[in-house]
Amino acid sequence: MKPGIPAGTASIEFLQPVYIESAASITGQKEGQGPLGNLFDMVSEDPLFGTKTWEAAESTLQKETASLAIGKAGLTAPDIRMVFAGDLLAQTIASSFGIAEMDIPYYGLYGACSTMGEALSLGAMTVAAGYGEHVLCAASSHFATAEKEFRFPLGYGNQRPLSSTWTVTGSGACVLGSKPPVPEDQKHASPMRYKNGCAVITGITIGKLVDFGFKDSLNMGGCMAPAACSTIAQNLSDFGRTPKDYDAVFTGDLGMIGQQILLDLLSEKNIDLHSVHQDCGLMIYDNETQDTHSGGSGCGCSASVLAAAILPEIARGTWKRILFVPTGAMLSKVSYNEGESVPGIAHAVVIEHSEI
Amino acid sequence: MKPGIPAGTASIEFLQPVYIESAASITGQKEGQGPLGNLFDMVSEDPLFGTKTWEAAESTLQKETASLAIGKAGLTAPDIRMVFAGDLLAQTIASSFGIAEMDIPYYGLYGACSTMGEALSLGAMTVAAGYGEHVLCAASSHFATAEKEFRFPLGYGNQRPLSSTWTVTGSGACVLGSKPPVPEDQKHASPMRYKNGCAVITGITIGKLVDFGFKDSLNMGGCMAPAACSTIAQNLSDFGRTPKDYDAVFTGDLGMIGQQILLDLLSEKNIDLHSVHQDCGLMIYDNETQDTHSGGSGCGCSASVLAAAILPEIARGTWKRILFVPTGAMLSKVSYNEGESVPGIAHAVVIEHSEI
Repeated sequence: MKPGIPAGTASIEFLQPVYIESAASITGQKEGQGPLGNLFDMVSEDPLFGTKTWEAAESTLQKETASLAIGKAGLTAPDIRMVFAGDLLAQTIASSFGIAEMDIPYYGLYGACSTMGEALSLGAMTVAAGYGEHVLCAASSHFATAEKEFRFPLGYGNQRPLSSTWTVTGSGACVLGSKPPVPEDQKHASPMRYKNGCAVITGITIGKLVDFGFKDSLNMGGCMAPAACSTIAQNLSDFGRTPKDYDAVFTGDLGMIGQQILLDLLSEKNIDLHSVHQDCGLMIYDNETQDTHSGGSGCGCSASVLAAAILPEIARGTWKRILFVPTGAMLSKVSYNEGESVPGIAHAVVIEHSEI
Repeated sequence: MKPGIPAGTASIEFLQPVYIESAASITGQKEGQGPLGNLFDMVSEDPLFGTKTWEAAESTLQKETASLAIGKAGLTAPDIRMVFAGDLLAQTIASSFGIAEMDIPYYGLYGACSTMGEALSLGAMTVAAGYGEHVLCAASSHFATAEKEFRFPLGYGNQRPLSSTWTVTGSGACVLGSKPPVPEDQKHASPMRYKNGCAVITGITIGKLVDFGFKDSLNMGGCMAPAACSTIAQNLSDFGRTPKDYDAVFTGDLGMIGQQILLDLLSEKNIDLHSVHQDCGLMIYDNETQDTHSGGSGCGCSASVLAAAILPEIARGTWKRILFVPTGAMLSKVSYNEGESVPGIAHAVVIEHSEI
């Protein structure tokens, strides 16, 4: 196995496809009331997910989503060779507590809201290299834990500027594997197979940290747009493609303001992404009625939208090839209070429809 | 390339060796005054590393160590295909700010003090699979950032129990590659080659999260020992080895108390590690004179000891095969204050002497 795309680029092309065996999503109530509400596997009416703290709630959310993804692939935890997971919290406690009980070899990631891209990127590399038959990738976020972690506890009732985004309470998880998902008429059928169609990862572009000097932690879209621009331009260059080679390019959570900056920055590089660009943060809420300002955000935003709304359409063949580009803003309350800027990062994953 | 050790285990054996092309270490003054002081590449007398905040100090420390490792391999940043890095801080800001400026495709990790093991584990997999000719792995910690992040700001002058460990101000970085380091008599010679000897990674055992229910954040050794036990036992079982097959087994930062618990737990499994066990946290300080209580800790502890004291001896042939097992305690001040336990994780890397 010798992967394509030579050194000097930031991309890898897999010569053997990495199959997405299953995908699962669980969200909170607000996400359930949005335009994609019917597509999520589960919507919890209890924001505490049956626990006593917001952090335990997010751990439960991520673990349940991971369990669901494993179950949908017709597998059990011992079948999973390794897990790549992360979240937004300090020391990624949502992941280390949630998935701890599953007894699976564990790689903890921190990529801010780009985590699902980072997890899929590493997961696809390990499967393509033959290191594991089944690998789990998961990410989560929770509105209440994120507000507490990065801004103010909810009880303060602080106001949010129009440039701010709303952290999604949600989690998405995928099982990647070296063999196609099992057809529906067989035992342990996987829902990620529609007739003979399924979704495969065929390449990745690894993100670089990009710092434009933005310091506004309430305008994350602005902070992350330069990183999205860098990764998308790199992907097109490395694979020798134009935006027309993708049916859609999904960024993670740029929101309205970040989207405009991304499109402007790409225009300066003579790349017109208008016709194919979508943003998970703009898909998950109805901004007219749900008052989320610039859109949705958080690791769980792109992860749950991918699992619920994007992957099934690729398996069905609605889209033949898409680029999934979750975007992360690398800040902490410490770095913010010390006056540091907010670097961004974006990891891109090429996902294609495949007939078996 | 079909890696060894079948599914169902937690280990991978590389059929083609992954070379350690270079290793670099930078520490603070206290570490420089310890038994390994002469072995570190640089010892900074300024704990702020020329910056204005502890966090910026750690970022600078990690970036300088990474640059040094790249330089020692006779390379420049654009030669590095990807970097795996992490630290202890919330949202891993030491890594995302330090390495951001290097413009290298970046995977951010969070594995607490096991981070160097996690980075080497992922780095070795990517090199062995042919995804990159040169891959950088780095981790750092800083006494002042860690005290502020997990316990109290230094100005409070709070007292430390005898079970506590002292977070190392230090960073270690390695460049992994698919080809042997260049001999000394050639241009761009690498110091990780001694005559024909060098150090290679031949296998990994991926850690699982292990939670024994310990809740004492000032006894990290106790919290992490069960994870070290789990990973070491798994490694011996997966590779069909006994402790005698290793010249030394280095845990990361169990300290005195954690070491005793580890040896006891392994004894219960009929594994006698006494004769080969060493702990980086016990190697880096002289406990008689430096008053660090249970020993040293932090991502930078095992990373700097590996780079300065372990790898050169493997390249020289003093040790033929060792197991490097950095140990991490997965806690945050939030999870601690909410009464949660402290799960541990340990990632093991098999490193062997090789003649070219």
